[in-house]
Amino acid sequence: MIEPSILKGFKDSLPKEEIAKKNIQRTLEDVFSSYGFVPIDTPVLEYENILLGKGGGETDKQIFHFEDNGKRKVAMRFDLTVPFARFLALHFSELAIPFKRYHIAKAFRGENPQKGRYREFIQCDFDIVGADNASSDFEILSLMNSSFSALGINGYTFCLAHRGLFNEFLSSLMLSDKATDILRSVDKMRKIGKEKVKQELEEITGSGEKTDKIISYISANENRSFTQTLDYISSLIGEKTESYERMMSIYSLLDKAGIKEHFVYDPSITRGLDYYTGIVYETFLSGIESIGSVCSGGRYNNLVSLYSKENLPGVGASIGLDRLVAALSEIGSPLVSNTSSADIVVFPKPGEEEKAQIAASELRSLGLRTDVYLRPEKKMKAQFEYAEKNSIPYALTFTEEGYALKNLATRESKSTLSLREVKELCL
Amino acid sequence: MIEPSILKGFKDSLPKEEIAKKNIQRTLEDVFSSYGFVPIDTPVLEYENILLGKGGGETDKQIFHFEDNGKRKVAMRFDLTVPFARFLALHFSELAIPFKRYHIAKAFRGENPQKGRYREFIQCDFDIVGADNASSDFEILSLMNSSFSALGINGYTFCLAHRGLFNEFLSSLMLSDKATDILRSVDKMRKIGKEKVKQELEEITGSGEKTDKIISYISANENRSFTQTLDYISSLIGEKTESYERMMSIYSLLDKAGIKEHFVYDPSITRGLDYYTGIVYETFLSGIESIGSVCSGGRYNNLVSLYSKENLPGVGASIGLDRLVAALSEIGSPLVSNTSSADIVVFPKPGEEEKAQIAASELRSLGLRTDVYLRPEKKMKAQFEYAEKNSIPYALTFTEEGYALKNLATRESKSTLSLREVKELCL
Repeated sequence: MIEPSILKGFKDSLPKEEIAKKNIQRTLEDVFSSYGFVPIDTPVLEYENILLGKGGGETDKQIFHFEDNGKRKVAMRFDLTVPFARFLALHFSELAIPFKRYHIAKAFRGENPQKGRYREFIQCDFDIVGADNASSDFEILSLMNSSFSALGINGYTFCLAHRGLFNEFLSSLMLSDKATDILRSVDKMRKIGKEKVKQELEEITGSGEKTDKIISYISANENRSFTQTLDYISSLIGEKTESYERMMSIYSLLDKAGIKEHFVYDPSITRGLDYYTGIVYETFLSGIESIGSVCSGGRYNNLVSLYSKENLPGVGASIGLDRLVAALSEIGSPLVSNTSSADIVVFPKPGEEEKAQIAASELRSLGLRTDVYLRPEKKMKAQFEYAEKNSIPYALTFTEEGYALKNLATRESKSTLSLREVKELCL
Repeated sequence: MIEPSILKGFKDSLPKEEIAKKNIQRTLEDVFSSYGFVPIDTPVLEYENILLGKGGGETDKQIFHFEDNGKRKVAMRFDLTVPFARFLALHFSELAIPFKRYHIAKAFRGENPQKGRYREFIQCDFDIVGADNASSDFEILSLMNSSFSALGINGYTFCLAHRGLFNEFLSSLMLSDKATDILRSVDKMRKIGKEKVKQELEEITGSGEKTDKIISYISANENRSFTQTLDYISSLIGEKTESYERMMSIYSLLDKAGIKEHFVYDPSITRGLDYYTGIVYETFLSGIESIGSVCSGGRYNNLVSLYSKENLPGVGASIGLDRLVAALSEIGSPLVSNTSSADIVVFPKPGEEEKAQIAASELRSLGLRTDVYLRPEKKMKAQFEYAEKNSIPYALTFTEEGYALKNLATRESKSTLSLREVKELCL
């Protein structure tokens, strides 16, 4: 006998978790479709040099890679962004541009698993590629808003910033050459706090005065509205640049679409990654901000450059589905808690197996998800346990006069029913 | 620049294919749910010895396996059956038994790609575990019938047989010790023809007389009905065994459920795999039988034995989703051909971007999947190409009096419309 173990950092998804994931995935897919976004998929395995080409900090140890039977160096995708860039380069001429796509799929990292992080995880990415204007920035934000609204979440806040504005500000301080380090430090503020960031900035800039100015910039939204913050940081930069105009156009669209209350301008949002060039954002859920951003992204203008001469600007966002499931479960969302396997289960007595299957067929055609308990020789207790484990609310049994329905929570019964009456009572 | 290539035997799924796959997957999931089946998932990577433990003919070369960074011997799953057995052994006490689950996921094989077969493919498996009776056999068959009906396929035939009956027949011929070879040979009949099978059987059995009897057994359904075939092969066996009674009970259920016309008893169906012990089946679509079975399976009674002392009987089936997509595409199913990305696209002129986004929001809230063309500065030709590539049937534009709607197939226009009228015209 082989011990049925599972690899470290991996886990099975049991029915209740998988039902919750599918509920969430369907909800998101419906929203994406309502915006005209289309799905794609790419292989789990790619040439290693395609995935590592970017060289963006992913090291050997963090990815699963090996030599296949044909001596090719292959690797399992560690995100959906790099395969998307490769996909765009390969299929550019076949696609409708601007290309609006979503991709929900597994990715893999060999890193040491931390609390709530696994070596196999589901990413949900959505992007618009081939347009660089306020409308497309807005469309991604609007799609994010519609998604979180559809997920039934009441309190969510999108924190926006613009990388161009930050770069222009750093340029005005003659700090452009240190921009990457500064952005990475500021990016950690939610984790390590303002004081720590201040210390780091002093080391990076070597100047208390410049550090104070940066701190003042990234704290600009304290006690200021969206547009006041923008005006204030423009005054720090010394002019109203294109980036400023873009942000104001986006804000105007958010305002006219009636969704501005979910958005704040937060100049401390930088997103550490090098490739962002415009708007950047993170998403926090009220009361559980500490779990971190559940949807993040931004505008990038040269993602495909590694594989193609096309210069494709893009804007997009990414949701870590596992973290989102955890968050929705903490909030108590019905998408996560409604995990009944069926609306009703038929409990036949021995000899009633045929009747049970026929009744089940009819209930299904009336629109009820109908299970049949397939071990009628078992004791009643086993039957009720079965219904309970599956969170099935009702049971159908047969009496001499007709059908009887039991509410399994209250243990109330009604008898002498038609299947149509059963259906009405179950809804 | 890195050449954006893709590994041999792998492929990207472009939007139209991926939309079709998602349509099919959702349709199947809805049917599975209507029967109270629940989804699960397992990791892509498992310990190599877990996956190969069965030793069922899968060799080193056919699977992707490697040593991970922690020196563990790991492999990518090559089907969903072995991981399911491991899953059952590990989670038995947490599950509701009988356990009815489905699993739609990718599997991987390193074998040389043949026409239409890839190294990465999607399997859809559904099983009932923990019950051994006619009701559960019937339930899987009924679920298969509901699935193919829901997929909008008119002509489909489920070919059933019973491994127990075949074994009893071979036993009556004193050929039990050669059963595996005989089953494997008969299994090839659709591919290599009856004459070739006859030659093989003569070699295996060393007897012309016994070969003739086997040929007569596996051809028993020619000119015989379901029950006539059963009665005839019973007469060949010499008695009415338990297997015969089981098949008759299943037939009675198919009859009472009004779905028997989709089922034939075909004694030549054996399924090569060792682990089947009862009913076995394959599914053929009218007119494209040559692509082979699109849904196959059977009853097995000791799948989990490698990992657990539990003796869990089960019955299930498996659909190769890639082959099903190809089949539905050949048949012209709307699930595969309806791949429009949206119901309507808004074409703003430069300066109308805000209006376009607002109108799109309203159309979405009216229930239309609404896209906005994000490059208003482009020529009309580019806009129409965009709609065509995305198979979007209608376009909305703005006039001084209100909204105008263009049917992109007929090029007919209507103007001075309200958005509600637009919605009515699009449905």
